Amino acid sequence: MENIIMEPLQQTNLVITPAELLAHWQDHRNLTRRVIEAFPEDKLFSYSAGGMRPFAEMAIEMIGMAVPGLNGVITGKWEDAYELPHHSGKTKPSTKKELLKVWDEVTAKINALWPQIPAHRFQEHDLAFGQWEGPVYFFILYWIDNEIHHRAQGYVYLRTLGIEPPHFWERQ
Amino acid sequence: MENIIMEPLQQTNLVITPAELLAHWQDHRNLTRRVIEAFPEDKLFSYSAGGMRPFAEMAIEMIGMAVPGLNGVITGKWEDAYELPHHSGKTKPSTKKELLKVWDEVTAKINALWPQIPAHRFQEHDLAFGQWEGPVYFFILYWIDNEIHHRAQGYVYLRTLGIEPPHFWERQ
Repeated sequence: MENIIMEPLQQTNLVITPAELLAHWQDHRNLTRRVIEAFPEDKLFSYSAGGMRPFAEMAIEMIGMAVPGLNGVITGKWEDAYELPHHSGKTKPSTKKELLKVWDEVTAKINALWPQIPAHRFQEHDLAFGQWEGPVYFFILYWIDNEIHHRAQGYVYLRTLGIEPPHFWERQ
Repeated sequence: MENIIMEPLQQTNLVITPAELLAHWQDHRNLTRRVIEAFPEDKLFSYSAGGMRPFAEMAIEMIGMAVPGLNGVITGKWEDAYELPHHSGKTKPSTKKELLKVWDEVTAKINALWPQIPAHRFQEHDLAFGQWEGPVYFFILYWIDNEIHHRAQGYVYLRTLGIEPPHFWERQ
């Protein structure tokens, strides 16, 4: 019988590394930032379609999930995201400038927190925010997917306002 | 010096397995299927907002990328997705029933093709459809993200029609 060099099982399972997933998320966040910028100041906080929320409220939801979510991923302790609509400890952003400032603070916090995720956590099951059961990788994908979902609704808002949104495929 | 048991490098990189990524995609596709179903027949092919395409055309775009995309992932040979708006070899779907039938054919084909992806491909760089350069995992995420993006636009269409869309977080 010949000696067969088997690659480790994990090698055959490697789809995306933690660093690549972080970059993927931040690239999406960068596009979302440009969608926020594309809104006229007043429309950002007031305009909507179909009885939905203005885009600023959707962006504040994204902000509200990111850092409490990552803290839960790292520590296993979950704060209540719904009581944390922002991270600056100040009042909820009410201008585009304030919203972008908090957005950028969250960008930096995500980059600082990400390397603290213990490697085994991605595949571990947990109960996120006391209500979502599943593997940790799914929670992170959920936050990204939720951002893509609401950002796309912002695209429709922009188009109905006659504003061309940034290209979906340009993330930088 | 104590003996330290090091986990393999790949273990520290394991975020999501290929089987989990397939399930993630198919769960999203299942939600998209329910969004197609939620449209009234005539609105599916005609209604839009902000000068965008009707939802059926977006769904046909998703259908058009999936199997040619996976064939490219598996073989490294890329067909032109834009000349393949469907996979049944028949005419473009023009009724909800036909669209759902092709959707279900693609679901089965994705499940059949997925296990044929060589493990090393996810991290390999390629040129998808002759125009998108990057790692293969990114192409797959792109197809999923593109589906989430357009489906969310379908959500706005439904809401402006006074129809409650399926919950974003229910994928089954």
